[in-house]
Amino acid sequence: MKAVQVVGYHENLRMTEVPEPEVTGPWDVVVKIGGAGVCRTDIHILEGQWAEKSGVTLPYTIGHENAGWVHAVGSAVTNVAEGDKVIVHPLITCGLCAACRSGDDVHCSASAFPGIDTHGGYAEYLKTSARSVVRIDDSLEPADVAALADAGLTAYHAAAKAARRLRPGNRCVVIGAGGLGHIGIQVLKALTAAELIVVDRNPDAVKLAVSIGADHGVVAEGRQVEEVLDLTGGAGAEVVLDFVGEGGATRDGVGMLRRAGDYHVVGYGENIDVPTIDIISTEINFIGNLVGSYTDLCELMVLAAQGKVRLHTTKYPLERFQDAIDDLDAGRIRGRAILTP
Amino acid sequence: MKAVQVVGYHENLRMTEVPEPEVTGPWDVVVKIGGAGVCRTDIHILEGQWAEKSGVTLPYTIGHENAGWVHAVGSAVTNVAEGDKVIVHPLITCGLCAACRSGDDVHCSASAFPGIDTHGGYAEYLKTSARSVVRIDDSLEPADVAALADAGLTAYHAAAKAARRLRPGNRCVVIGAGGLGHIGIQVLKALTAAELIVVDRNPDAVKLAVSIGADHGVVAEGRQVEEVLDLTGGAGAEVVLDFVGEGGATRDGVGMLRRAGDYHVVGYGENIDVPTIDIISTEINFIGNLVGSYTDLCELMVLAAQGKVRLHTTKYPLERFQDAIDDLDAGRIRGRAILTP
Amino acid sequence: MKAVQVVGYHENLRMTEVPEPEVTGPWDVVVKIGGAGVCRTDIHILEGQWAEKSGVTLPYTIGHENAGWVHAVGSAVTNVAEGDKVIVHPLITCGLCAACRSGDDVHCSASAFPGIDTHGGYAEYLKTSARSVVRIDDSLEPADVAALADAGLTAYHAAAKAARRLRPGNRCVVIGAGGLGHIGIQVLKALTAAELIVVDRNPDAVKLAVSIGADHGVVAEGRQVEEVLDLTGGAGAEVVLDFVGEGGATRDGVGMLRRAGDYHVVGYGENIDVPTIDIISTEINFIGNLVGSYTDLCELMVLAAQGKVRLHTTKYPLERFQDAIDDLDAGRIRGRAILTP
Amino acid sequence: MKAVQVVGYHENLRMTEVPEPEVTGPWDVVVKIGGAGVCRTDIHILEGQWAEKSGVTLPYTIGHENAGWVHAVGSAVTNVAEGDKVIVHPLITCGLCAACRSGDDVHCSASAFPGIDTHGGYAEYLKTSARSVVRIDDSLEPADVAALADAGLTAYHAAAKAARRLRPGNRCVVIGAGGLGHIGIQVLKALTAAELIVVDRNPDAVKLAVSIGADHGVVAEGRQVEEVLDLTGGAGAEVVLDFVGEGGATRDGVGMLRRAGDYHVVGYGENIDVPTIDIISTEINFIGNLVGSYTDLCELMVLAAQGKVRLHTTKYPLERFQDAIDDLDAGRIRGRAILTP
Repeated sequence: MKAVQVVGYHENLRMTEVPEPEVTGPWDVVVKIGGAGVCRTDIHILEGQWAEKSGVTLPYTIGHENAGWVHAVGSAVTNVAEGDKVIVHPLITCGLCAACRSGDDVHCSASAFPGIDTHGGYAEYLKTSARSVVRIDDSLEPADVAALADAGLTAYHAAAKAARRLRPGNRCVVIGAGGLGHIGIQVLKALTAAELIVVDRNPDAVKLAVSIGADHGVVAEGRQVEEVLDLTGGAGAEVVLDFVGEGGATRDGVGMLRRAGDYHVVGYGENIDVPTIDIISTEINFIGNLVGSYTDLCELMVLAAQGKVRLHTTKYPLERFQDAIDDLDAGRIRGRAILTP
Repeated sequence: MKAVQVVGYHENLRMTEVPEPEVTGPWDVVVKIGGAGVCRTDIHILEGQWAEKSGVTLPYTIGHENAGWVHAVGSAVTNVAEGDKVIVHPLITCGLCAACRSGDDVHCSASAFPGIDTHGGYAEYLKTSARSVVRIDDSLEPADVAALADAGLTAYHAAAKAARRLRPGNRCVVIGAGGLGHIGIQVLKALTAAELIVVDRNPDAVKLAVSIGADHGVVAEGRQVEEVLDLTGGAGAEVVLDFVGEGGATRDGVGMLRRAGDYHVVGYGENIDVPTIDIISTEINFIGNLVGSYTDLCELMVLAAQGKVRLHTTKYPLERFQDAIDDLDAGRIRGRAILTP
Repeated sequence: MKAVQVVGYHENLRMTEVPEPEVTGPWDVVVKIGGAGVCRTDIHILEGQWAEKSGVTLPYTIGHENAGWVHAVGSAVTNVAEGDKVIVHPLITCGLCAACRSGDDVHCSASAFPGIDTHGGYAEYLKTSARSVVRIDDSLEPADVAALADAGLTAYHAAAKAARRLRPGNRCVVIGAGGLGHIGIQVLKALTAAELIVVDRNPDAVKLAVSIGADHGVVAEGRQVEEVLDLTGGAGAEVVLDFVGEGGATRDGVGMLRRAGDYHVVGYGENIDVPTIDIISTEINFIGNLVGSYTDLCELMVLAAQGKVRLHTTKYPLERFQDAIDDLDAGRIRGRAILTP
Repeated sequence: MKAVQVVGYHENLRMTEVPEPEVTGPWDVVVKIGGAGVCRTDIHILEGQWAEKSGVTLPYTIGHENAGWVHAVGSAVTNVAEGDKVIVHPLITCGLCAACRSGDDVHCSASAFPGIDTHGGYAEYLKTSARSVVRIDDSLEPADVAALADAGLTAYHAAAKAARRLRPGNRCVVIGAGGLGHIGIQVLKALTAAELIVVDRNPDAVKLAVSIGADHGVVAEGRQVEEVLDLTGGAGAEVVLDFVGEGGATRDGVGMLRRAGDYHVVGYGENIDVPTIDIISTEINFIGNLVGSYTDLCELMVLAAQGKVRLHTTKYPLERFQDAIDDLDAGRIRGRAILTP
């Protein structure tokens, strides 16, 4: 089959012919790819940023946001059958460790990560596990939802966790209305009645945020902290969801947070650097957020099927992978780039 | 009556004669002081560290850890009566704001803080509110529990909050086995079956911690992070309760924390300074902790009455306030210094 | 002032002239009534069903769903001022007992209930407490929201409690689409993405429910349990909210409940009568629901101001109280009857 | 191997020679039995009470409380190895359904129950799954902990769930100090500081309960409700854990429950039969409790290893199975009867 592989760091990806993956273990599932999201992480992989962390052996097939149709299943697989339309959770988890047994499979002590440390989905077929495939509604197409498998799932996880404490009358600031923030806003609208204030440097992103349900939009031009305080009666917001995490976002975000508030860290880059006396005297919390669990992905697919979460995509045939990468790198993609068969 | 007052910053406290406080409002309660805790914060006040923050007008009576007997009550007070033995919550809260109405009175939007921004308890009598007095068990003496009113209450609040997620088999690291840590350990033993690992620079404090129930003691001599990792199978602890917050404690503490773990900030001094990528890739949380609520104080008094929380005290007659301050400053107090009538 | 009073059980209410209530205590608030809801409980009071339970002395002024404008306040009142537009929480609570201190003021150990055990709001003025008044948005009118003070608040409380466990993909059955159910459906839509299945004997009520957001409507004509099971893939719903509680509703409702499901009891009349073996083998829960707290009422007023909760009302001048009662008794009211000044 | 089988209802069990179970699937685990608990449910099975519910084909090997050593493992098993000392969770769960994926594996939609609907542990070997075996501490012996696998696990599950809301100063009534109650008391002591009131008809059971940590013992001789109310200041207990569920226990238990209290149903026999008006006016909850999850069993084994949960056992060689059954039926067992190899 055709597969797009990392053949060296600081080199372009290369399309090559490799054997189709086959079922060898009892929980194996081979998925015929219907869509593979092109993610900024893929560019970071090519830059070598993940080389040491993943320990992957080159060449290998990249692509960690995948959806498609079940092609073959192992002997013990009971939850999907050949032909099922599925989205693929980014992790293959063991199902036996303490984290997996308590439903917190993202912290599995023995997981694999296709596209990062083993073969991924820029290909015709992908091998994953019965524990990683979620059947999607008939109304959804793999190429339309593939990017929800990782970027969208992370946004869902953080927004749904934040939503648990948001009551009517509470305010939630969303910092960053790009890919993740866009999903986060839709999820918050679906799960809470809290007032949403969206902050972004890009006026167009702010406009888009308001058009999909944000109650207030703030363009970050220097007075964003004051503007948020004005919008919250001077007290700040009960929750800040920070999808940026760099360029001073965290200092701003803490300034927008109310006493006893929750600061959700999702984007990353800079340090959280806050005096402990400020943390204790206002009793604020910093909450880390990694990608969502399998159950989170099931829930997100429900919202997608209900039309409550939508993602704009630009599709490229698999052969045009380089154009997709180039367009992403140059900021020419609106929404997400998706490789299709 | 006699009262010990702040008459100027960088000056000694002075004992003077002032009028007894009187009931003027419907929820007022005047307490005859049985014990007033001498706290490091009192020394910081004299150093002027709180001058701007509190905005208090000098001279005023210091002392924010108080217990005694109800001496007089306002017309609307129904929860205590003259003669009742009580401990005094450090805050006078309004009872009407959103925080008070939801039980989170520590974040009251209109609170007063006797001993900090109004007259406190280094005196014969203290004026507080019906919302601040907790009746204590017959078996307890005001002078024995006074120091639980603030230092102990903070430790209780953090330990009880941390305990909510600690299951049997989980590990909890307590950094700092001084005054607060000492209470925190006893509270954790009372509320959880988690394994407690106590870390302190002082070998005697570690020994004491083990004698009151810590499962493991680690003397912080440079290898404390490795030792904790060894004690937790390399994975770190589900919870770190940091009663120190300075001198590198937070960097150490984060190194002792397990994936998806909670880092409770209680002590303060340095900054929490952690890369956002570390926060999200391990999905850890930093949880702020201020003093406990009125309900927390009620619960702590139950543990005290049950003998599950005990505090060593050194008592001084009110007139010897300067000796108490000096002994505290010189590190000559074991447990807490208490001024008595 | 004019007031409508209970002068005897099994007798008609009588309008009479009584002295205006005056502020006598520090937290007293006198409200000029803008709307007073006429509730089925008022009819039950006249039938004597509450005589023993309330112990009220006749004659007294009836009416427990009130909203209006602050007319006078006691010396200690800081949260409202003369002229403020307010809705009145049905209970006057003490603010000092353990329940009040933890935010659970509905279980106050020393509450009063105007309209039930002391003078209520079928009058020009009502005396209540600072702890019972919630300022409402400029866009809301007292006569439009008065009925949310008790009936609506009960529905909000139950729906918001139920919502805490409802995830996308879960199903929630609402039994009874009358006054409370109507509010409950709107609240569930605002707070969750769960699929709502509404069951009622009245086809018009079912139609109305679907028009305000229910995903499925089931007319209870004998096959309602099977229909709900069909709609839930045979497994039943994660949550049943029973606003009826009589006429066999509870037996039906339990039949519609999924393993590990929550059955919320709101309406009342018959017994919950279920074999313990069924409770343990399916591990279901029965959750009691009383009226909401002060904080619940604040949240409900936010939803009302956002237009997410609306109630149809039929207004009568206070003098026409008997018409309102008669129309309610005869089933001629759509929505709620409201007495206005 | 030797196995004790059900050969007909209303007939005695029969020991016979059957083939040893073998590993056939990837997650299979064969356990050499070290101890098999003899449970009242085994007697109910012989009486035919489970015949229809389980649908099991006779003859089959009985015994659902098992512990021992791993004898053989399937190709995909990574969590245990031959020779490991293990306790066996009573259910074999699928690991793929929504319940399993969220950690709530007891509600697995495709589980098997060895000893009930397939071959159990009154034998030399038992076939179970990698998902059902929990390694136990070196200090524990299979024959000593086997009865914790089901009876103990149920008690743990209910007590740990109840403990989540029990704060210092709260009261918890335990109805029934037999096998399950005995474990429940020890678990509550380990996990909470709540005051425990134990109620049983048998004065010796009450004495034993007090000796292992109950704060108050009440012999149920007719005045048990009044006695509990006296012990709780007239208000009742925040939690009632009912391990009996028959003979009027539920009516008594509801009478002992405080407003807003939780009634945990564990034992079964009679109906919960309570007016809905009482449920809503006091806002009480009835909480069902089935056996615990795999994670619960891991936690219980931690408490056992810490010596916080102990169970008295009477051991019988497997051949003397009939004596064990007879002694249990005649009430001659103190603690639990265990069959050993």
